[in-house]
Amino acid sequence: MADDQRRVRIAILGAGTVGSQVARLLIEQKDDLAQRIGAIPEIVGIAVLDPDEAREDDLPRSLLTSDLGALVAEADIIVELMGGIEPARTVLLRALNGGKSVVTANKALLAAHGPEIYEAADAAGADLYFEAAVAGAIPLVRPVRESLAGDRVKKILGIVNGTTNYVLDEMTTKHLAYDVALKEAQELGYAEADPTADVEGYDAAAKAAILASLAFHMRVRLEDVYREGITEITPHDVAAAAESGHVIKLLAIAERTEAGVCVRVHPALVPLAHPLANVRGAFNAVFIEAEAAGELMFYGKGAGGLPTASAVLGDIVSVARHLAIGGKGPRESNYVDVPVLPLSAARTRFQMRLRVLDQPGVLAKVAAILGKHQVSIEAVRQPPRAAEAPFAHLVISTHEAVEADLDATVDEIRECDVVNAVLSVLRIEGE
Amino acid sequence: MADDQRRVRIAILGAGTVGSQVARLLIEQKDDLAQRIGAIPEIVGIAVLDPDEAREDDLPRSLLTSDLGALVAEADIIVELMGGIEPARTVLLRALNGGKSVVTANKALLAAHGPEIYEAADAAGADLYFEAAVAGAIPLVRPVRESLAGDRVKKILGIVNGTTNYVLDEMTTKHLAYDVALKEAQELGYAEADPTADVEGYDAAAKAAILASLAFHMRVRLEDVYREGITEITPHDVAAAAESGHVIKLLAIAERTEAGVCVRVHPALVPLAHPLANVRGAFNAVFIEAEAAGELMFYGKGAGGLPTASAVLGDIVSVARHLAIGGKGPRESNYVDVPVLPLSAARTRFQMRLRVLDQPGVLAKVAAILGKHQVSIEAVRQPPRAAEAPFAHLVISTHEAVEADLDATVDEIRECDVVNAVLSVLRIEGE
Repeated sequence: MADDQRRVRIAILGAGTVGSQVARLLIEQKDDLAQRIGAIPEIVGIAVLDPDEAREDDLPRSLLTSDLGALVAEADIIVELMGGIEPARTVLLRALNGGKSVVTANKALLAAHGPEIYEAADAAGADLYFEAAVAGAIPLVRPVRESLAGDRVKKILGIVNGTTNYVLDEMTTKHLAYDVALKEAQELGYAEADPTADVEGYDAAAKAAILASLAFHMRVRLEDVYREGITEITPHDVAAAAESGHVIKLLAIAERTEAGVCVRVHPALVPLAHPLANVRGAFNAVFIEAEAAGELMFYGKGAGGLPTASAVLGDIVSVARHLAIGGKGPRESNYVDVPVLPLSAARTRFQMRLRVLDQPGVLAKVAAILGKHQVSIEAVRQPPRAAEAPFAHLVISTHEAVEADLDATVDEIRECDVVNAVLSVLRIEGE
Repeated sequence: MADDQRRVRIAILGAGTVGSQVARLLIEQKDDLAQRIGAIPEIVGIAVLDPDEAREDDLPRSLLTSDLGALVAEADIIVELMGGIEPARTVLLRALNGGKSVVTANKALLAAHGPEIYEAADAAGADLYFEAAVAGAIPLVRPVRESLAGDRVKKILGIVNGTTNYVLDEMTTKHLAYDVALKEAQELGYAEADPTADVEGYDAAAKAAILASLAFHMRVRLEDVYREGITEITPHDVAAAAESGHVIKLLAIAERTEAGVCVRVHPALVPLAHPLANVRGAFNAVFIEAEAAGELMFYGKGAGGLPTASAVLGDIVSVARHLAIGGKGPRESNYVDVPVLPLSAARTRFQMRLRVLDQPGVLAKVAAILGKHQVSIEAVRQPPRAAEAPFAHLVISTHEAVEADLDATVDEIRECDVVNAVLSVLRIEGE
């Protein structure tokens, strides 16, 4: 019993792109995770339904099993990453009825059978977490269920399908026709050979149903969601949108009015100044308007094995912690001893503006000082703004350099006879 | 005891801009919140330290008290919204030591005395939630503490101070000098009469210390944070940044390298294509790079009484639920019965593209059809793209209209003798 309290037993169902990453991270980061959970997370087995699809090469073969029932019986936490309705539905209902905690990324299942599954979890007092089911790596379910639990959501506008966002983005930036952009997306692996679920909006509609249910504390079924895909969008539509200051996005929309709630998925013109307009390529973002919080946006990768695994692991830590230390929030006193570095150790790029003598040989002198301190020049510009004679302005951008080296460089530049003043030194971030 | 299980007793310390909104929302939304908590949230009192600052006009006077000690003793949950170090520190430590749950928005206290407070909470097994302490309404603490608990954060870049973001934004878009932009911000109430805490980066540094502590599971003290404000930024810096494709933002940066962690606040050049570059005015946003999740961004209002109250209420619901129903995640089976509306009930703006006969009187005919169905025209354009004679293209944007009215309009336009084709009808969202 003492030993039992110090371990949580985890069953992973499915070893595809997400399942294999979840298993790998659980094994590799066992010690870190144990600290945060308050117990050791132990994988009791990985259920492989379809051996051809299993990416089990890196996984311990001793953990692989095809006996789903025995595996579920043995575990405290069931992590369902098989996808599809059955056998996932039956397995999860049985697990929840038995009081086991469940983590799932299965949007199809929740969109079709959410109420049944939510109720089974509540009736048994079991945890049901599904952060990865709506927007992959983006923390969205937790904020909507918990952070906004005291607020009233008015409207949600979401770019929740990376494939269609990529296709529309290519149509917009490269002026491609729909089928050309789709073919490119397929070649790059951003779209499936059969793209129907994405381009016709089925995937977005499933996510919209789950999101609307959570945000408005109600039951929205998949068939309640109006759905329209992007297959009819033409380059002329894209051009006309641009002319009126818009960009076309496939949006999942859930809106609450006095009459009720309307949930729909369709292409829409979004103003260029709106935060969603700048969500590019395969990224996802969800924009939420709430009565008290105002406008919020959540942005990140909505798909992919590793990003989705991050969301699944966060859920595993939450439910494991509930089992290990009882019903409270996260703890902060388990901390690691990492050195805090002074600024001089930071590495960044820099842009410095100098006022220099307007004469030949100045750049060579300045460049020599940078070189001496291992600071490498990325670009030099002489801006069009007039400097009073006999001076000129010089703007120098550097490659990444150590802060201490740059300090020494600037000190020496200040003393240089051709330099009148160091006007500013600013760091460059986010590149 | 039966009655006790069905109520959670809440003490609100402070009745300023945030405290008064939290109290108002708790009272107004009591029934909704009780559903989500599983117990009735009851305010046992509101502590008013400084009667001059209390915005208690809308609050029941019977709840106001200046006896902090008695109020805390009576409550299950202490909601600390006084700000400042003392008496907040002493009161919260005493409450946590007594096993009471604490919700606070006090960034100064957590930045200066976080470790002491985290450890008191953990030692007592008490909940300590502080979503509102870092980025106002933006759900950020919960995602970092919980959603990313199974991931490894590499870098955080945050715009966490609305005043400086507003000032820099005005300098960028209106080419204002720093002191002119600051004065404007003060007149509009975006900056304090004494703006030091904001413009010198102290506020951002406190938030950076808290955020780095959570993200890297370590102790970062306020004095570990390198800090540089925006007072030296000139219009020339802004212009030079624009010339190289950047915009200047005051960033809170926390970065983990192999050597350790470096936390710093300073102005930085951010590339225009970076999601942070588009964060305008008084909005805040935090960009996080994690090993598995990849790039994430959280965007919203970082200050203000009502937005901050939203975050505080979310925390209250979380800790109250822990008290009411024990240590599990949120429940979904308490749902409300709201009608799900069909698409025909939705109201949106539309943009339709028509191929029409290139002759006088066409617009009048089309406009008459829209008017008949109560669809009001916002703009009409004849795009420069050539249509084959005898046709022209017409792009019509409407004001908000009911979907069903628009359907009837489009049906009638299709039958109109001067219209060759309805090329597309797209909805406009996000305006």
